[in-house]
Amino acid sequence: MFPSTIPECDPTVSPRLYHTCMAPISVSTHAGTASHLPCSGHAQLAPKCDGMPGSFPPHSPANFLEEEGNRGLMAAVFGILFSSLCVLVLDADPLPLITHSSQHSRGKAEYWKILALLYYPAFYYPLAACATVGHRASYLLGCLLSWCHCVVHVWQKVDCPQSPKIYRYYSTLSYVPIIFCLMVLSLWYPALLIRSLTGKEETSNKEVMKVYEVVGTQGSPTWKTSIHSWFLPFAGFQLPLKIVLSMTTSVIAVYQVALLLLVAFVPTIQIVRAGMTKDVVVLLVQFGLVPSENPGMPGDMEKELSTVKHYLWSLEVCYVCSLVLCCLLTLAMLLRTLVMHRSNLKALYQGAVLDVFYKAHILRPSRQAIVCWMSFASFQTAFACLGLLIQQVIFFICFAAFTFLVVIPLQSGTSSYLFKIVPFWLTLVVAVIVQNVAAHYQFLEQHPLRKELTNRRALYIITYLLFPINVLVGVLAGVWRMVISALYNAIHFCQLDISLLNRGVETFDPGYHAYCHYLKTEVSQSHPLMRVFCLLLLQPTKPQGPPEPRTGDLEEGLQLMHTKKAPSGGGRLKRSRARWWLAYTLLNNPSLMACRKTALCDPTANGAQLSPSKP
Amino acid sequence: MFPSTIPECDPTVSPRLYHTCMAPISVSTHAGTASHLPCSGHAQLAPKCDGMPGSFPPHSPANFLEEEGNRGLMAAVFGILFSSLCVLVLDADPLPLITHSSQHSRGKAEYWKILALLYYPAFYYPLAACATVGHRASYLLGCLLSWCHCVVHVWQKVDCPQSPKIYRYYSTLSYVPIIFCLMVLSLWYPALLIRSLTGKEETSNKEVMKVYEVVGTQGSPTWKTSIHSWFLPFAGFQLPLKIVLSMTTSVIAVYQVALLLLVAFVPTIQIVRAGMTKDVVVLLVQFGLVPSENPGMPGDMEKELSTVKHYLWSLEVCYVCSLVLCCLLTLAMLLRTLVMHRSNLKALYQGAVLDVFYKAHILRPSRQAIVCWMSFASFQTAFACLGLLIQQVIFFICFAAFTFLVVIPLQSGTSSYLFKIVPFWLTLVVAVIVQNVAAHYQFLEQHPLRKELTNRRALYIITYLLFPINVLVGVLAGVWRMVISALYNAIHFCQLDISLLNRGVETFDPGYHAYCHYLKTEVSQSHPLMRVFCLLLLQPTKPQGPPEPRTGDLEEGLQLMHTKKAPSGGGRLKRSRARWWLAYTLLNNPSLMACRKTALCDPTANGAQLSPSKP
Repeated sequence: MFPSTIPECDPTVSPRLYHTCMAPISVSTHAGTASHLPCSGHAQLAPKCDGMPGSFPPHSPANFLEEEGNRGLMAAVFGILFSSLCVLVLDADPLPLITHSSQHSRGKAEYWKILALLYYPAFYYPLAACATVGHRASYLLGCLLSWCHCVVHVWQKVDCPQSPKIYRYYSTLSYVPIIFCLMVLSLWYPALLIRSLTGKEETSNKEVMKVYEVVGTQGSPTWKTSIHSWFLPFAGFQLPLKIVLSMTTSVIAVYQVALLLLVAFVPTIQIVRAGMTKDVVVLLVQFGLVPSENPGMPGDMEKELSTVKHYLWSLEVCYVCSLVLCCLLTLAMLLRTLVMHRSNLKALYQGAVLDVFYKAHILRPSRQAIVCWMSFASFQTAFACLGLLIQQVIFFICFAAFTFLVVIPLQSGTSSYLFKIVPFWLTLVVAVIVQNVAAHYQFLEQHPLRKELTNRRALYIITYLLFPINVLVGVLAGVWRMVISALYNAIHFCQLDISLLNRGVETFDPGYHAYCHYLKTEVSQSHPLMRVFCLLLLQPTKPQGPPEPRTGDLEEGLQLMHTKKAPSGGGRLKRSRARWWLAYTLLNNPSLMACRKTALCDPTANGAQLSPSKP
Repeated sequence: MFPSTIPECDPTVSPRLYHTCMAPISVSTHAGTASHLPCSGHAQLAPKCDGMPGSFPPHSPANFLEEEGNRGLMAAVFGILFSSLCVLVLDADPLPLITHSSQHSRGKAEYWKILALLYYPAFYYPLAACATVGHRASYLLGCLLSWCHCVVHVWQKVDCPQSPKIYRYYSTLSYVPIIFCLMVLSLWYPALLIRSLTGKEETSNKEVMKVYEVVGTQGSPTWKTSIHSWFLPFAGFQLPLKIVLSMTTSVIAVYQVALLLLVAFVPTIQIVRAGMTKDVVVLLVQFGLVPSENPGMPGDMEKELSTVKHYLWSLEVCYVCSLVLCCLLTLAMLLRTLVMHRSNLKALYQGAVLDVFYKAHILRPSRQAIVCWMSFASFQTAFACLGLLIQQVIFFICFAAFTFLVVIPLQSGTSSYLFKIVPFWLTLVVAVIVQNVAAHYQFLEQHPLRKELTNRRALYIITYLLFPINVLVGVLAGVWRMVISALYNAIHFCQLDISLLNRGVETFDPGYHAYCHYLKTEVSQSHPLMRVFCLLLLQPTKPQGPPEPRTGDLEEGLQLMHTKKAPSGGGRLKRSRARWWLAYTLLNNPSLMACRKTALCDPTANGAQLSPSKP
């Protein structure tokens, strides 16, 4: 009946061997990608552009958090990182490089775990860096690395699918996200390599067009199609990379926590159910936990035994149901976060600060804003974990209470305590109905022009007489207030864009505080129009593409680049048109005003521009 | 060591005898006060005025919820009622009229309790009704009744101070609020009687002046003093009677719940501590709950016994501390409710609906509003009870966790689990500090004119490397989010004027919903200006007092009363001045517009007037 002990299993490629081989390769890749820095085409322009808002720095291994094409790849790397963290937290050998015995020397295990927290990001760093270098050799290296990691992980799990930790298949199942993400990488890198070999690199122009779709609403007839994208959800709108990363890791977090909750409870209770004996049942009957027809005489306990088994089975069903519900709710709330985030970003791009925040904020990076930006994805992930845990606790209690107070008494025909006080419930219901009916027909004048109080004396007498009963109704309302606020907070726990506290004290909520500051940084650094300007700055050698004449003069900084090309004839017309375009753009995007040359020279004017002004 | 059993005690005046004697007296008083209705001076005017907003109905026993002088008396009666409910809920003999044996017949106890919920309000009704009849005989009757009740209760408790229920003095202590309220009544009725005998009745003019102080801000030089009252809290401002009642019963609720919590836990744990034996200590040591130097050898357990006693004493201290804190917090929050209520009422009197509610509301009585008005005091009381309970649970857990995880390990020098992972805490703290310092000195350009991001590559690398550590920081932030929202909701649970839910879904909170509707009814029925008009309507025979010429023509309805008195000379000047006063009053009190004759004839215009327009 009890599970046979799982034999210790040593995979052919032991974790220690794997890390001993791969860590040096990672280190050398670090060095290789770092030395690769100056081989990028735009390296000369880059340093000047580095401090500029929304600039497009050159291809460099460290710029993997810039928003470029490889969002899925970055999401996969962060997924691997988070899954490693999950494995690491519960693992006895956090750092496979070191031998098992030295890790377990007294008091040292903690230090190895802390070291492992920094080791894993460095270990998987090349997988992210190789894609951002933008060179064929780096793509090839990325291919080889990801294939290598993937093959080793799959091989290890095929060798040893079972492990004694928590549940026999827990280890394998917890590695599924890592293997999946590695598979994504093993397909992505070859695709990148093939594309670079066939020479199909067309990112910048596409990006410009995309940004035009987002920003330009109805500026010119050629942008007609973009009107549609304005109404269609997500069409023509790119979520920031940070959000994509945080959503990926949050979904993996939901998987890992749900898996842990499942394997920690269900097999255990199944074992308990299978191993339930009559001795234990006698104990339970004596404690009054299980109803029995002859509690004094512990003789034939067949019926009680089946009752106990049925109870345990009910508990199991409640647990699984609540877990499924929690996962679905958490995923739904994460999706809702995406929708909210999109609308918040759009509102802030248009300068409507008060549509998003309760008070006016200055959309500038600050120390706090940068720290919150750095930890945003981590917070989102951690909150998804905790939110699922809290939900599971609350829903399980609710489901179990409902089952044992209502369903099981109804099934077995025994009366639970709730049914014993039916007259009490009826009294409360009757009192509420009487008050409502009296209020409608007796105390409210039905004349359509003046809905007024009438029959005041009867109203006062009823209020006085029903005071004690209303206190009991109030206790029920209070319980409902407690339940509904607990449920609301538990369900929305994983949403950082909602404060769990009341208006006025909203920002004391650490999640909402982090979100607000993250949003500030994101908006100030990645305004679509700014990105187009910087992209144009970085493409001075290209012939005039279709969007260039329209935006070439939009910002004073760009005029420097076009002085030698601008023809003397028609220059005035062109400049006046450019001025109009500038005015139109600023009207539609007031938040850009803070970045203009005149605004930057006058620090006192910055605050005033942040009042919401919609076109 | 265990308490000696408390002997059964029969008071000289048994509860059954008391109720058998007093119930008929109550019934006859009902009949007497009801027959007393037409002896009031203003009875002829009353029926016409009954349906009018803010009207002053005549003295009648049923009008005890109108706002008149005897607010303290009404509060005392409601206090008695609520204390009786508290006694009744825990009592085995809910209805003292019926014999003990018939109440305990099978399945009947519930019905007697439900009957008792209606019996007690009727039993104490004469105490409230006698004051509102406004006749000397009724005051005398009230005196006799309150003295009688008071003497019987005091006598019973002097006879039998101890009872076996819960704790020997619990019964006596739980009767303290009833006795206190009865004493207030026994002093209040003689005072009323003496005042009616000496003929000092001056309520109406005082009331008019008081209302002027509230409404007229700076209308005329003679109102200068009222400016001060505008800034002083509560000066010149009367809280509605319902609020006074709900606060009284809430304070009694806090006393009763705190008493119950105290006597249910502290004596029990003291008994457990005194009766702790070495056998139990051996068990606790074996379960690992108590540290021991030689856990395998249960020999001399003196030290462990004292440790266990110290632990139990610590628990007791935590419990009492958290209970004291909870009571103080609940009382503070109830005080804050008063302040909030005053500012909300003032804002609504001035028509600033959006200052109070999130959305625009029409301040008219409706079915829901009347039901909420009826149950408001009960809800406030019930929420105070539940709020104190929830706070006690949360604070006790917090205090106990702090004591057993931090204080006791520090005292005894043993290392708790929290101290064992100090390097882990240090890592998290260092990571947060590093991020803050780096954000301030490295990633933020210090130029005062352009605070911009810089060193993006380092920012991305740090973000990536610290991702796993930030997830752990995020878990801590999530725990803090959970704790702070739970604490916030528990502390503000007794405040009905705050919604525990987020903006947008605020009204799903039953407490806030009840408060909003209660406020609507209160504002629409008791606007100070309306009350003055009605008071003037009811005083047609009096000579012109000082405030009358100013308000006499304020409303068209009042002109009828003055047609025969108005002199023909100077009539035009007077009327134009009255018009100006009307315009000024309406400008300052836009919510009154809805009650004007023209507005009542045009139902479509009512909604538009509710937009907030401050002077």
